[in-house]
Amino acid sequence: MTNTLYLPELREMLAENDVASLREFCTALHPARTAEFMEGLTGREAWAVLRHAEMPLRVEIFGFLTDEQQVEIFEQEDRAEIAQFIGELPPDDRVDLLGEVEPWIVDEIMPLIATEERRDIQRLRQYPEGTAGAIMTTAFARLSEDLPVDQVKSVLREQAEDLETIYYLYVVDNEDHLRGLISFREVVMGAPGTTVGDLMERDLVSVNVLDDQEAVADKVARYDLLAIPVVDEEHRMLGIITHDDVIDVMREEATEDAHMIGAVAPLREGYLETPLVTLTWKRGIWLAILFFGALLTAIALGRYESVIQQIAWLVLFIPLVISTGGNSGNQSATLIITALSRGDIRLTDWWRVVGRELAMGFLLGGSLGIVGFFCALPVAPTFLAAGVIPVTLVLVVLVGTLLGALLPLLFSRLGLDPAMMSNPFVAGLVDVLGIIIYMHVALAMIGQ
Amino acid sequence: MTNTLYLPELREMLAENDVASLREFCTALHPARTAEFMEGLTGREAWAVLRHAEMPLRVEIFGFLTDEQQVEIFEQEDRAEIAQFIGELPPDDRVDLLGEVEPWIVDEIMPLIATEERRDIQRLRQYPEGTAGAIMTTAFARLSEDLPVDQVKSVLREQAEDLETIYYLYVVDNEDHLRGLISFREVVMGAPGTTVGDLMERDLVSVNVLDDQEAVADKVARYDLLAIPVVDEEHRMLGIITHDDVIDVMREEATEDAHMIGAVAPLREGYLETPLVTLTWKRGIWLAILFFGALLTAIALGRYESVIQQIAWLVLFIPLVISTGGNSGNQSATLIITALSRGDIRLTDWWRVVGRELAMGFLLGGSLGIVGFFCALPVAPTFLAAGVIPVTLVLVVLVGTLLGALLPLLFSRLGLDPAMMSNPFVAGLVDVLGIIIYMHVALAMIGQ
Repeated sequence: MTNTLYLPELREMLAENDVASLREFCTALHPARTAEFMEGLTGREAWAVLRHAEMPLRVEIFGFLTDEQQVEIFEQEDRAEIAQFIGELPPDDRVDLLGEVEPWIVDEIMPLIATEERRDIQRLRQYPEGTAGAIMTTAFARLSEDLPVDQVKSVLREQAEDLETIYYLYVVDNEDHLRGLISFREVVMGAPGTTVGDLMERDLVSVNVLDDQEAVADKVARYDLLAIPVVDEEHRMLGIITHDDVIDVMREEATEDAHMIGAVAPLREGYLETPLVTLTWKRGIWLAILFFGALLTAIALGRYESVIQQIAWLVLFIPLVISTGGNSGNQSATLIITALSRGDIRLTDWWRVVGRELAMGFLLGGSLGIVGFFCALPVAPTFLAAGVIPVTLVLVVLVGTLLGALLPLLFSRLGLDPAMMSNPFVAGLVDVLGIIIYMHVALAMIGQ
Repeated sequence: MTNTLYLPELREMLAENDVASLREFCTALHPARTAEFMEGLTGREAWAVLRHAEMPLRVEIFGFLTDEQQVEIFEQEDRAEIAQFIGELPPDDRVDLLGEVEPWIVDEIMPLIATEERRDIQRLRQYPEGTAGAIMTTAFARLSEDLPVDQVKSVLREQAEDLETIYYLYVVDNEDHLRGLISFREVVMGAPGTTVGDLMERDLVSVNVLDDQEAVADKVARYDLLAIPVVDEEHRMLGIITHDDVIDVMREEATEDAHMIGAVAPLREGYLETPLVTLTWKRGIWLAILFFGALLTAIALGRYESVIQQIAWLVLFIPLVISTGGNSGNQSATLIITALSRGDIRLTDWWRVVGRELAMGFLLGGSLGIVGFFCALPVAPTFLAAGVIPVTLVLVVLVGTLLGALLPLLFSRLGLDPAMMSNPFVAGLVDVLGIIIYMHVALAMIGQ
């Protein structure tokens, strides 16, 4: 997505140290667009440009630089300058970024960061990846219940620069227990003479600091929130997660699910940025698991060698039988995985799922079976022999739909991620069972 | 997800017409939670409860009822009462909802809606599903450039009740051309004596009313916006799309992509809500397409019957060869589809993609080939014969990765949705090519 339009001009301005033009470049556009025009620059060049932006703007543009540029700046620029700059960054962003910087460089930078910010960073770094704590920010507005509404503005004015959002204001007691929420709209539009406590909403939606980030996204989506408060076991307020972070989480989770459905271990970076060895490894694990699953089909076929030699035309339909079973199993698994992750079905609905899958299995297997029968007629010696194909197809599609639906429910019941476990297992199991069913149907109907 | 805790109490309150308790029920909790407690009620019962909530709250709780309850209320309650209630609903939500109500009932309700609201509904209904126009709301705050900042609050107070958000305020000229944006924070914190024009940002991110909703979500995510303005060809402002609608779009699109990767035509409703016939049909189309693809493997195998009769042990590895090719193709397709939809790669990157896929194909195919060779040894008569398996596996994995990577790029180039087209095509093509490669390698290495 590199925009190369301004690169030559930018490099010229840097070479000539054209302060006026560089300043204008930084202020003229939306910070995100300014960052886009700098995408072709190295981290070092981008930082040389950013030095000409005033601090709040510098932080904003920096936030839109690419991950690589940000990491390069942290790793290559003067440690003391970076330590000071880190103090200005949003608490959640700087922790994420430090996680990608070489550990020995982090060790050099950390002692140079101001004490208060350093403690905040250390606190946030302790939460495991994928939890609410790991994506929350500690820069939120705190008010006390007895504050008169007309004084809120001046309280905010003191800290507004640093806050992630001032549109949701949280009300806490002396020990930081979350008591309520008041929106900026209510503060501004509210009648004078009232206190924050009079206007605040007391029935709040919050998340625990160790909740999974997917659960956080679900709640924000369900309740149409701008931000959600994060609390500990004692309901003390620790931070907030804002709508834009939730959108990032949702993109990440959606890509992860898609990768797992396609049998790739999820990537941390983009396709082109992931080193080839990593990518090969992330595909290789699953490909190997699937390969050993497929080896079982060879063993199964080996056990039925006499059947195949006796009835040679059966071989022609082996791939058809296997892939039809696999495809129907895949469809069921995908439907159930997405329904589970959207909250459309719950584990207790399993018997309804089984009923629906059985019905669909009969309908789909039956229809394909009719087509399969006519395709088998030209090669099968008798009508009865051709009947092996439709009977097999109905059974294989039934097994595929049932396993495809039940395995994700089972994995979910066991506390495992249904998206990660299901499709490879479904594919492997259905392939082997497909061979066994095919051979037994043939033996029963036309074997001696 | 039905919460049945309060249902008996609620029904009792309704039966006894206990106005005080019903009122308290409506006001005590967050509107979303109130709606959750009513999930077990029929639409008619829910409406009977809602009648006890004051209007702005009634609208809020109604917004969190299930789709089924909302539709039932629109279809069963008094037309005039519903028409009046529709006037109070957010412009985007009421249009969505009317789209799900029986057309003849809509025809009865529409003439009873106040003229201004009716025109607004008709205007919004003309935008095709999936476009920015179809998800935008027309309830946004408009300011003029010369308005003094200290008067903004009173201007807003007049209309704030109806606005979707007052945190982003849009500045338009007399002909509604979008001129700039000012945040509520700037209005409240801004120095007195300035005008809206002095403080507003002029470099705005906007979308065209006919842009795809996925593009809208991308922009809001990239620029971390609370809302995005929607304009026509002449840059006249038509509406806004807020962060919560974007989150809904992203969930919808993620599920759609997952379904298409799993070869199911996307569903409009949840798994349990979709009628069985519809679900069977949405799976059946793709299953049939894949079935006819698999039939080609039968035809291919038929052409090589003499090879199979000559070298019987080859049959054992047919499923292994096919599924390994299919799985590696699936992985590549999934990686490229997600990378395209996230903007990680562009069509012009195709040669880098090909290079990476070729390298991975060799590595993956080679490793599996080594394992495959040892598995083939016990059944193959000679070392050379066992060598058929590794050579085939390398070639099949190469074909799988290349096709899996290139087909999504090709479909994207042709303007088709890569997620919809790729996996079934990849699976079908790779299966047939797998058989052909297998047989030719066998003929070349050990045939007479």
